[in-house]
Amino acid sequence: MGKVIANMSMSLDGFIADPADGIDQLFGWMGNGEVEVPTAVEWATFRMSEASAAYMRESMAGVGALVAGRHLFDITHGWGGTHPLGVPVVVVTHEPPADRPETFTFAGSVEAAVKLAREAAGDKNVVVASAKIAQQCLDAGLLDAIHVDLVPVLLGTGVRWFENLTTAPVRLEGPAVIEGHGVTHLAYTVHRS
Amino acid sequence: MGKVIANMSMSLDGFIADPADGIDQLFGWMGNGEVEVPTAVEWATFRMSEASAAYMRESMAGVGALVAGRHLFDITHGWGGTHPLGVPVVVVTHEPPADRPETFTFAGSVEAAVKLAREAAGDKNVVVASAKIAQQCLDAGLLDAIHVDLVPVLLGTGVRWFENLTTAPVRLEGPAVIEGHGVTHLAYTVHRS
Repeated sequence: MGKVIANMSMSLDGFIADPADGIDQLFGWMGNGEVEVPTAVEWATFRMSEASAAYMRESMAGVGALVAGRHLFDITHGWGGTHPLGVPVVVVTHEPPADRPETFTFAGSVEAAVKLAREAAGDKNVVVASAKIAQQCLDAGLLDAIHVDLVPVLLGTGVRWFENLTTAPVRLEGPAVIEGHGVTHLAYTVHRS
Repeated sequence: MGKVIANMSMSLDGFIADPADGIDQLFGWMGNGEVEVPTAVEWATFRMSEASAAYMRESMAGVGALVAGRHLFDITHGWGGTHPLGVPVVVVTHEPPADRPETFTFAGSVEAAVKLAREAAGDKNVVVASAKIAQQCLDAGLLDAIHVDLVPVLLGTGVRWFENLTTAPVRLEGPAVIEGHGVTHLAYTVHRS
């Protein structure tokens, strides 16, 4: 069975976006290299360092479904209909949008969302791509791993990845480290006591 | 001339102590290995992984003086009179204690403290060992490097290292990465634009 992995780009001081949801300071590593990493959509092709590209290709090959929050779904306008990863996306929301795109599934809780995503993913991994949803998954004991793309910047303010955890402290194992250019990939396993 | 380096152990979610100033969850890597690293005091001998020990020995050999905040000085009771690093310590405080230990110097601002520490350090590095003081040094453009001993735990609450930065975003370069056991040493350089 695949793993449930939270994965985000994070500043050294813990932010995954600036106060206006901007990610320019955090996603530079996806475009600062020579090695092309195509995605499922034309509007997103990454150009990374060789190390990041190898890491990214392996990660992408292992992903079977994505769980995202409603906020992320809204600010990306549903990724224009297709998520770059090209996998089924389950959006956690209490009120599914009226014009419900066929390519997305909506679930009322993280538990339901992870269950649906697991079914869709089969043997592959489920990636959780929203800060709040990742927090809720962690609190619900649903996360197997946390993969941080740690970016060498201090944002000082913005949206924190880890906040309001109700089950902390949470012990982690690892990380496996991949050194990219403008990013350090840190893959932690959530410790089960 | 030496560098001014902020160095602390930090949880993945950015805390350098729990809400009661506890550091048990963060300093485990200093005692979880086989390699002994003696300090200047009898009450503190580290036992680390080989990688951390090598990193620590090199760091310790390069340190010529320490800048600490008054809070840290107070909660450690002035390290019993001698800091484990065995170097001159400059404490930033507006009101020096009445019984002023001879082994410490007191300064009224981070600027004054770093100046005194630089003089004491000679060609060696100045290490800044308090979260708030490191923030103030960063804001004042006094920091050359940030060395994070990143610990695989989410504390959820506590004392944050980076908070209330007035000059953010701050771009960093690196990091140089050393993988220890229960810790990842990340040595960043502060980018000067």
